[in-house]
Amino acid sequence: MEQALFTANNLWMMIATILVFIMHLGFACVETGFSQSKNTVNILFKNTIIPPIGLLTYAFWGFNLMYPGEDFAGKLFGFAGFGLSSPEGADTGAYNAGYTYWTDFIFQAMFAATAATIVSGAVAERVKLYSFLIFTVLYVGLCYPIVGMWKWGGGFLNTMETPFYDFAGSTIVHSVGGWAALAGIILLGARRGKYVDGKIRPIPGHSMPLATIGVFLLWFGWYGFNGGSVLSADPGAVSHVFVTTTLAAAAGAIGALVTALVVIRSNDLSMVLNGILGGLVGITAGADQMGITDAILIGFISGILVVVAVVAIDRVKLDDPVGATSVHLVCGIWGTLAVGLFGNLASGAQVISQLIGIVCIGAFCFAFAFAVFYVLKITLGIRVSEEEEIEGLDIGEHKMEAYHNLGQSQEKMYS
Amino acid sequence: MEQALFTANNLWMMIATILVFIMHLGFACVETGFSQSKNTVNILFKNTIIPPIGLLTYAFWGFNLMYPGEDFAGKLFGFAGFGLSSPEGADTGAYNAGYTYWTDFIFQAMFAATAATIVSGAVAERVKLYSFLIFTVLYVGLCYPIVGMWKWGGGFLNTMETPFYDFAGSTIVHSVGGWAALAGIILLGARRGKYVDGKIRPIPGHSMPLATIGVFLLWFGWYGFNGGSVLSADPGAVSHVFVTTTLAAAAGAIGALVTALVVIRSNDLSMVLNGILGGLVGITAGADQMGITDAILIGFISGILVVVAVVAIDRVKLDDPVGATSVHLVCGIWGTLAVGLFGNLASGAQVISQLIGIVCIGAFCFAFAFAVFYVLKITLGIRVSEEEEIEGLDIGEHKMEAYHNLGQSQEKMYS
Amino acid sequence: MEQALFTANNLWMMIATILVFIMHLGFACVETGFSQSKNTVNILFKNTIIPPIGLLTYAFWGFNLMYPGEDFAGKLFGFAGFGLSSPEGADTGAYNAGYTYWTDFIFQAMFAATAATIVSGAVAERVKLYSFLIFTVLYVGLCYPIVGMWKWGGGFLNTMETPFYDFAGSTIVHSVGGWAALAGIILLGARRGKYVDGKIRPIPGHSMPLATIGVFLLWFGWYGFNGGSVLSADPGAVSHVFVTTTLAAAAGAIGALVTALVVIRSNDLSMVLNGILGGLVGITAGADQMGITDAILIGFISGILVVVAVVAIDRVKLDDPVGATSVHLVCGIWGTLAVGLFGNLASGAQVISQLIGIVCIGAFCFAFAFAVFYVLKITLGIRVSEEEEIEGLDIGEHKMEAYHNLGQSQEKMYS
Repeated sequence: MEQALFTANNLWMMIATILVFIMHLGFACVETGFSQSKNTVNILFKNTIIPPIGLLTYAFWGFNLMYPGEDFAGKLFGFAGFGLSSPEGADTGAYNAGYTYWTDFIFQAMFAATAATIVSGAVAERVKLYSFLIFTVLYVGLCYPIVGMWKWGGGFLNTMETPFYDFAGSTIVHSVGGWAALAGIILLGARRGKYVDGKIRPIPGHSMPLATIGVFLLWFGWYGFNGGSVLSADPGAVSHVFVTTTLAAAAGAIGALVTALVVIRSNDLSMVLNGILGGLVGITAGADQMGITDAILIGFISGILVVVAVVAIDRVKLDDPVGATSVHLVCGIWGTLAVGLFGNLASGAQVISQLIGIVCIGAFCFAFAFAVFYVLKITLGIRVSEEEEIEGLDIGEHKMEAYHNLGQSQEKMYS
Repeated sequence: MEQALFTANNLWMMIATILVFIMHLGFACVETGFSQSKNTVNILFKNTIIPPIGLLTYAFWGFNLMYPGEDFAGKLFGFAGFGLSSPEGADTGAYNAGYTYWTDFIFQAMFAATAATIVSGAVAERVKLYSFLIFTVLYVGLCYPIVGMWKWGGGFLNTMETPFYDFAGSTIVHSVGGWAALAGIILLGARRGKYVDGKIRPIPGHSMPLATIGVFLLWFGWYGFNGGSVLSADPGAVSHVFVTTTLAAAAGAIGALVTALVVIRSNDLSMVLNGILGGLVGITAGADQMGITDAILIGFISGILVVVAVVAIDRVKLDDPVGATSVHLVCGIWGTLAVGLFGNLASGAQVISQLIGIVCIGAFCFAFAFAVFYVLKITLGIRVSEEEEIEGLDIGEHKMEAYHNLGQSQEKMYS
Repeated sequence: MEQALFTANNLWMMIATILVFIMHLGFACVETGFSQSKNTVNILFKNTIIPPIGLLTYAFWGFNLMYPGEDFAGKLFGFAGFGLSSPEGADTGAYNAGYTYWTDFIFQAMFAATAATIVSGAVAERVKLYSFLIFTVLYVGLCYPIVGMWKWGGGFLNTMETPFYDFAGSTIVHSVGGWAALAGIILLGARRGKYVDGKIRPIPGHSMPLATIGVFLLWFGWYGFNGGSVLSADPGAVSHVFVTTTLAAAAGAIGALVTALVVIRSNDLSMVLNGILGGLVGITAGADQMGITDAILIGFISGILVVVAVVAIDRVKLDDPVGATSVHLVCGIWGTLAVGLFGNLASGAQVISQLIGIVCIGAFCFAFAFAVFYVLKITLGIRVSEEEEIEGLDIGEHKMEAYHNLGQSQEKMYS
């Protein structure tokens, strides 16, 4: 390929990589903002250490597990060996038409940690730190690359007659995180004081500015997440994805606004924020296949679904402090299904393929996560003590607090 | 055009788009940081829902209202029909030499919401939520595309003998917001307790870190706002705009620092922050036409103007909590005039054309905004009740608070 | 050079520029978060005004001092004249194969302020504002361009037989800041109450979310800092730098996590955050010369070093509130040395050249900064009064507070 075009393509993939990177800060801000201040250091700690874990395990073996090459066992499980070295043509167009080997690795590696970051929010405020980190290593290092390979690595979901379609990962990234979040909150139980005498007691997040910053950063990063999934800087394809992604996010906000007004009779900022995220998750599976109206509809319905799901999940007493299952699991499933219902690929056969993908990946991920959390529960334990939960995990796990003397009279500090 | 160059041009326009997107987070942070904590959720809510409203109305009709095509009534008013579909060549260079149809739409759409976001800050802490949202739909959906069309859509300001010049929108974006901000605060009146017994009582913002984050994000995004207005990745033109934009912002900070020291005898962080924004607004009209010294002078004078305007506007008892009129209206006018005074286009004829543009757009926007706010005032009302203002709009409009238990002993929460 | 390739190269350099720009916000957040809330406005003020100072002094003379052209005195000191005008070919490929004159200037100018921003954190909470700003003008305006010229401007460190190697500035940027930080904290003395009766009393930072946001923004910006130092969008070279930079940051986090567990027996968030920064500083000198394993090792050792250095520097009663000397000086030296120990350039001769560079630049910078701070100390004074330190610099220097009524009952504000 011509050098200038290769350079422009690779440049976009690198920029998309760092946009996906900043999503990790987005997740950290959203999850921290929606949680109590006494657990802030703990959430920040998890979300700071998950990307390094994800990046390093992906370098060591994940990348080669996810992309095993042409021929592998039943298109179900393969492994190209350990990483740390680069193939011939790594630095040039010889590796790939759109980007170098290094770009390929780093773009994919940035995605990997996301699966665990999503879980982090759902299990927040009561999960034991090291149990969660062990889960992270296993889930990001094994589960994510295996199911990713099923589709993106050339596995059985990609070789079906009507291939399962998931453009940027409504299922392969977001639902993967969402299923583990569900497994986690089932095994952990609700936070102390959340469901008392059959009543739901809301535990408000401690900083709405932080949560808002997080959602905007996620939206910002999503241009790399979806736009980069074009795997080149193709002007028509990437700009089209930008438009569908943007309008779905916008429609998600409006969908959640309206639904929250009807269902909970409130101008609820956290619902609108989650509506944006829901719209983004919803469009992710088909961002390159939808027209403008399709994108707006998918996003709007995602916004409705988020609000309904948050209320419903709370009713069945599954305690998800940040709404991660509603956003990433429910809208991830919806968006994946929507590929069969709207846009270029809409067909009955596609709906069935989408269902196959959703069910296979869902079953594997939920089982994997449930098994890991269960083994951890009966060995190390996954939940902090009641005292620690009351006092906060910041003191319990980190011996530090997130905030000191904010705007109080401070003269007395050294008295 | 050659594919590689088209790809690079389009890539820059897409990146500029997401830089403009993140400006919406910048506005949210600045306006929240400069306001009281009891109105934080309300401001975040407005600034989260304005971009979706702006994006969707622009998709539905705004884009076609702003760019009506070659021939339209008196170069004053035209309309190309409703959106949601794409023209031939949408995905390729056939649409445009520098970018695709999709890129054109999404770049312009990101600008649209800005006009209302600017107003949001000025009317903060006392405006009724739904009255403001109705204003937003009308102002972003109708007023902004109409005046934008006057210049950028080929209207009468562009077809004058010496065309009005506004490179990236000192007038067409920033003053448009500023005039509505002025109309809003006139009709709303000052916040309770701001002007008592003829004295000005400062109401300090609740979070300087948030305001600072906002200003840096706005500066960051401005590289897309101004740099993207080149409408290609032309190396000389875009990098030149980067230099003028940067130096004007820097000089604005110094201008405000010095002026604040002289005028209010204080190392005032909020003035320096607004000085940066003033410098950015000031250079926006002529960022591609100025030399280095011009840019520094324009920015420095903007920094002076911001401080003087903040003090003066306060003296006449117009209550603008975040200084939006000083930054966006005063420096917008100054920057637009400066195109006639400095740089490549400096001439008497240009000054007159600039004045015509400033006056025409100003008169239309102020009248439009005043009429909308006035009708809302005598129907729905535009100001919250005294009780709600005292208690805060977060509780009044949203039934939630922005912060909980920040750094206080938290053990008692569940007691 | 072909126009399309030139456009793509220049585009990357412009984007790298704004990534480096956002690092200034990263520094502001890290330093504010790690300090007490009563000094927040002061730190924000410094970090808001330093970039304008750095940009303007660089435009006036710094750029021409750092890049004096081919022939200058002893390769030690030269000056190409005052700035504000542009050479022939400024806008086109005639100036340079990879980018325009304007891009060259603005990319380099964004680096300049960094040297002072690093110092800002170390001297926080007790330095006099205007003494620090005078130091900033001299250090950023003179010291940084002079030592930068020694290598990047074609000076003696670049013309040695085995040239000193510092890809993106482990020494030339980070240690330059680190040495001045060391000089500053030696002359300033510790904060009141830090070392009492021979004991170290930790003074915790006031906002961990702010510090975390800062570190992620710095990591984000570092892709421009290191990736832009390739000076083109060369696909292989830039993506390779992205991989080494990312893995070093990740390994730094793990290195610091493990070391903090062993040394201070705590899951210390601030150590992990500084470990990331340490890894980034460490890889900066050789980011283009290292294999994957090298990068991981360099980052991991940086993470260990940060924790050990923070503890050691505290033991000798040098009070550095944010760990700037540990991160930027210690890891800067380590990363520079590592170029001689790992990767493509590893050799005994290279180790010696690296030591020569470290020692020459270190001696000059430390002496320069010490002299400036010393003269300021015996004239204007460099330390605020005891009363001001207790009350906080926000009130003392700025007559304002950073936070108001965060989450407290606010009804009483106007009573």
